Amino acid sequence: MMRSCTAALRTLRVLRCRLEGAFPAARHPVLARRWFSTEKVIPKDQALPNPSWSKDLRLLFDQFMKKCEDGSWERLPSYKNSKLVKEQLSQAQLFTRGYEDGLGFEYVMFYNDDEKRTVCLFQGGPYLQGVPGFLHGGAIATMIDATVGVCAAIPGGIVMTANLNINFKRPIPLCSVVVINSQLDKIEGRKLFLSCDVRSGVDEKILYSEATSLFIKLDPEKSLT
Amino acid sequence: MMRSCTAALRTLRVLRCRLEGAFPAARHPVLARRWFSTEKVIPKDQALPNPSWSKDLRLLFDQFMKKCEDGSWERLPSYKNSKLVKEQLSQAQLFTRGYEDGLGFEYVMFYNDDEKRTVCLFQGGPYLQGVPGFLHGGAIATMIDATVGVCAAIPGGIVMTANLNINFKRPIPLCSVVVINSQLDKIEGRKLFLSCDVRSGVDEKILYSEATSLFIKLDPEKSLT
Repeated sequence: MMRSCTAALRTLRVLRCRLEGAFPAARHPVLARRWFSTEKVIPKDQALPNPSWSKDLRLLFDQFMKKCEDGSWERLPSYKNSKLVKEQLSQAQLFTRGYEDGLGFEYVMFYNDDEKRTVCLFQGGPYLQGVPGFLHGGAIATMIDATVGVCAAIPGGIVMTANLNINFKRPIPLCSVVVINSQLDKIEGRKLFLSCDVRSGVDEKILYSEATSLFIKLDPEKSLT
Repeated sequence: MMRSCTAALRTLRVLRCRLEGAFPAARHPVLARRWFSTEKVIPKDQALPNPSWSKDLRLLFDQFMKKCEDGSWERLPSYKNSKLVKEQLSQAQLFTRGYEDGLGFEYVMFYNDDEKRTVCLFQGGPYLQGVPGFLHGGAIATMIDATVGVCAAIPGGIVMTANLNINFKRPIPLCSVVVINSQLDKIEGRKLFLSCDVRSGVDEKILYSEATSLFIKLDPEKSLT
């Protein structure tokens, strides 16, 4: 994928990928700097197939990897740990990457710069149960927040969720694959407005959820607290 | 707490506690029946103090247990597993109870029947990280959904989240204690409207989030899919 890019574009994309990988860190200026400065070993990219991925998730992954070949889309890597220095939080890890393969959030995101769209392929494992047999609403909200967050952070820089408004239309069966399709609708000053829907994987026939969200660009020099 | 209740009220409260404990199952009629019919051993109640609870969480817990003494409030038990028969989902467990003590969601809920209020005392552990040092927005959304869900299910029976609209005002530091205060605002036919806020524990001075939600009563005879 990178071979088709110019050197400048490649640098920009690598930076963006790093931002997504360190996405939560990137939202917090002080800790983001700390994250970058203390990182010495390249951590494992979690947004790649593992044996727990279903046939549907692999099929969708392959379809999107194909779309990446001309450079219009790019796969976004994703990591489990940020290097937080505070001793008491040494166990801290990204909420969506805290499970063993297949038990929790299995997902990969793809970004299209021209269309300002982020697509997340998501397979919710058995540890994300709400109503027996179905995903917990909070697990869906989590992946929606993560997806629109990435869609906002790439153009917006350091951003924070200000509002998340989700309509749950149908419950999502546990271990099924869904596609979260998000887009940046408009920017007004420091405000970024986004929307997304959650549909069944491969056929996209079933509309499970719809959401809108508002993100605010943060001043990189200010602390969150 | 139970000693101050009449026998009838006691039975009703025990049933309500069971419904909360089997709360996700209670939302799904077929599986709820299955849950009750296959349950033979009383599972461990997770909504009780463990060594990971901070001083603040224990203090708030003691305060609410005191309120339970006159019967106006009651503590709601909470369990990890529902007895789902399907073999392929034998690993399934409630999203909010899938972590070892202290790493994920540590919480206990209390219900006030007269005021139709549910309060959740919540300590978010290091595995729920979003921005380094802070809770993931999805983890907050999860506990909000769980709390308003209980607040809707006790009067409404089998209910499902239809809408969740959250305003995130300030990020919540990892491992701190917050109080989620939810109430039933009105019922219109099958619709239940609820609201809640999330504040810092003990002093409640910091307003972290506010949310409104809509739940729909389901027909116990109809399947979710």
